[in-house]
Amino acid sequence: MSVTAAPGFVAGGVAAGIKPSGNPDLSLVATADGLPVAAAGVFTRNKMTAAPVITTRAHLDATNGHAVAVVLNSGNANAATGQQGLDDAEAMCAAVAAELGVDASQVLVCSTGLIGIPMPIDIIKAGIPAVVAARSADGGQAAAIAIMTTDTVAKQVVIDGGGFVVGGMAKGAAMLSPNMATMLAVLTTDAAATPEQLKAALVYGVADSFNALDVDGCTSTNDTVLLLASGLAGPVDEAALNDAVANACASLAAQMCADAEGATKVVRMTVTGAVSDAEALIGARYVSRSNLVKCSWYGCDPYWGRIASDLGSCDIEFDPSKFSVSYGGITVCRAAIDAEHDAGAVVAHMAGRNLEIVADLGLGSGTATILTNDLSHAYIDENMGTS
Amino acid sequence: MSVTAAPGFVAGGVAAGIKPSGNPDLSLVATADGLPVAAAGVFTRNKMTAAPVITTRAHLDATNGHAVAVVLNSGNANAATGQQGLDDAEAMCAAVAAELGVDASQVLVCSTGLIGIPMPIDIIKAGIPAVVAARSADGGQAAAIAIMTTDTVAKQVVIDGGGFVVGGMAKGAAMLSPNMATMLAVLTTDAAATPEQLKAALVYGVADSFNALDVDGCTSTNDTVLLLASGLAGPVDEAALNDAVANACASLAAQMCADAEGATKVVRMTVTGAVSDAEALIGARYVSRSNLVKCSWYGCDPYWGRIASDLGSCDIEFDPSKFSVSYGGITVCRAAIDAEHDAGAVVAHMAGRNLEIVADLGLGSGTATILTNDLSHAYIDENMGTS
Repeated sequence: MSVTAAPGFVAGGVAAGIKPSGNPDLSLVATADGLPVAAAGVFTRNKMTAAPVITTRAHLDATNGHAVAVVLNSGNANAATGQQGLDDAEAMCAAVAAELGVDASQVLVCSTGLIGIPMPIDIIKAGIPAVVAARSADGGQAAAIAIMTTDTVAKQVVIDGGGFVVGGMAKGAAMLSPNMATMLAVLTTDAAATPEQLKAALVYGVADSFNALDVDGCTSTNDTVLLLASGLAGPVDEAALNDAVANACASLAAQMCADAEGATKVVRMTVTGAVSDAEALIGARYVSRSNLVKCSWYGCDPYWGRIASDLGSCDIEFDPSKFSVSYGGITVCRAAIDAEHDAGAVVAHMAGRNLEIVADLGLGSGTATILTNDLSHAYIDENMGTS
Repeated sequence: MSVTAAPGFVAGGVAAGIKPSGNPDLSLVATADGLPVAAAGVFTRNKMTAAPVITTRAHLDATNGHAVAVVLNSGNANAATGQQGLDDAEAMCAAVAAELGVDASQVLVCSTGLIGIPMPIDIIKAGIPAVVAARSADGGQAAAIAIMTTDTVAKQVVIDGGGFVVGGMAKGAAMLSPNMATMLAVLTTDAAATPEQLKAALVYGVADSFNALDVDGCTSTNDTVLLLASGLAGPVDEAALNDAVANACASLAAQMCADAEGATKVVRMTVTGAVSDAEALIGARYVSRSNLVKCSWYGCDPYWGRIASDLGSCDIEFDPSKFSVSYGGITVCRAAIDAEHDAGAVVAHMAGRNLEIVADLGLGSGTATILTNDLSHAYIDENMGTS
């Protein structure tokens, strides 16, 4: 199910031979009737923009926000590949368009994998007829599997909006500090909506989901979230659409965090009491990127001194005398000094997989939460080589 | 040698019992004649400021930049310890002052170790007579050893300024992203200089040394660099003093990077061709803090795509078509695509302990270098628990 949960969409996934492992690596999401529908996307703000991001943006511009299909590959990011990379992204769209009998500009493209390696475009083009032929109304799972890289599980979601459905799939397990989007998510809905409404729903939806996810502080070259609307459910309340899209994004972001490379902890790091939400977000993100804090989480160590040190050095308003920290709801520090607490209860919380940490600055009403992970040996093992 | 290299200074170090290991943990640097000399300091910008930093600043203010001694302890940072911590820092100064027959405001104090733990002040006070008694003209080594925490070697330096000497010691192996200073360095000179001249020399000296060191992006609560001048060599050229202090700082910063927790690589990460030096520094620091890049260094992998991705996402001017990267002087990427190169020579460079990496943005003349390390299993092991 997932990306094909909303009536009007089909999908599929095949092993085209891009990955040396022989695992599935080529996906397609398309409208069931082959006709264009409203579509919108949000993309990485990384200036080292990957070719498929540039191509997909251009196609959405050319069609005023309409698309028939999205083709996605794993195993190669088509990033830092120059003009050849742009030609390859265009060729992928053209090959799908030829199979479907539509214009290339009506096909969007996403890639994920290693950066700086030329695309095996002949292999991909040879696989496209197969993935187009494989598309079906129950092909969502196959499509979600074929976009995995170091992901260990496929990420899918279905949200019942009340009279309409939002479904989706995503991939991502590292280089996860999305900025307006994250590495490859495709959402579909049967709600009737304009491209502008879809864009608004995406911007609203990614704010507290993908954009509040920070696995390793590294923003990808390929971040893309797309939303296509078949309209088969007819017009819907705009707020309901926004909420359903936001819930879908939140679910996929949580699935990414749970499957983050090498992670042993899923941490909700909240900063409250900041002078503004913006300062709370700076603080929560800074702590979430701190290797010393991440190492202490890996060691199940409630070392709040490092959190205090980080919040004191990230250029936000900070007053030690107002500062407190809690783990799993148990306050361990007040006024930046050790507070009497049930140490056994804190140890039990830190031993779990899900950590809830709140650092209260005690200065105002600004609040933000970042979803993040610990730093483990396995993260290093996954990222110390490209092979 | 080292902090006692400049005539007019004595030092010593003892095991007072702060560290459970029984290793040396209490140091003293003092003037040989017990009279005050010109002194200056630069300190952490972390707002979670440790008590000894607050106390040392206040003492330098009260004496208009003069001091007789510096007392330093390892094993406890006296940070996030509230009013009791301030009382304890003051008590350390008072105990030294009583032994030396001077005013407490003429004694400066530095602490390093765990954050958020009350100081074992009775143990420290009991040890102070011993460390005062142990001071001698050849006690620099003992003093340098007694400020070590996770450092595996003592860090010392002697610079011949031509007619005067700058000597010093430092400690630091993690939580190293100094901002105007780094964790505990004490420099001495026999040059005659005003406190203002010493401050100017320090500000000049730390810019390209401690402030260009970034082991793990974490700014300490206790960063302090102090400089004391006995004046026994008489007045010296101010530029010569600045250069000698800068050289001493650069040597100590390099020693810290070489001994960084768990590191297997010492990396000079240079960004050139930025639109300004400030943007080059943002870029070099951003890459130096990137866990994905640090993991690739650990794996001896010249994965320039991650460097490109980081520089594209750190909010500086960036144009893929102008971008190139070299490892050990060998250009591996031009215009953000793979450049033909001697792969064997790159492999040989990456296998070494010292990496020289230059990322050229091709946009202007801005340049900056950050001294940094890889991210290893051992860094995690050292930081996953406080015990």
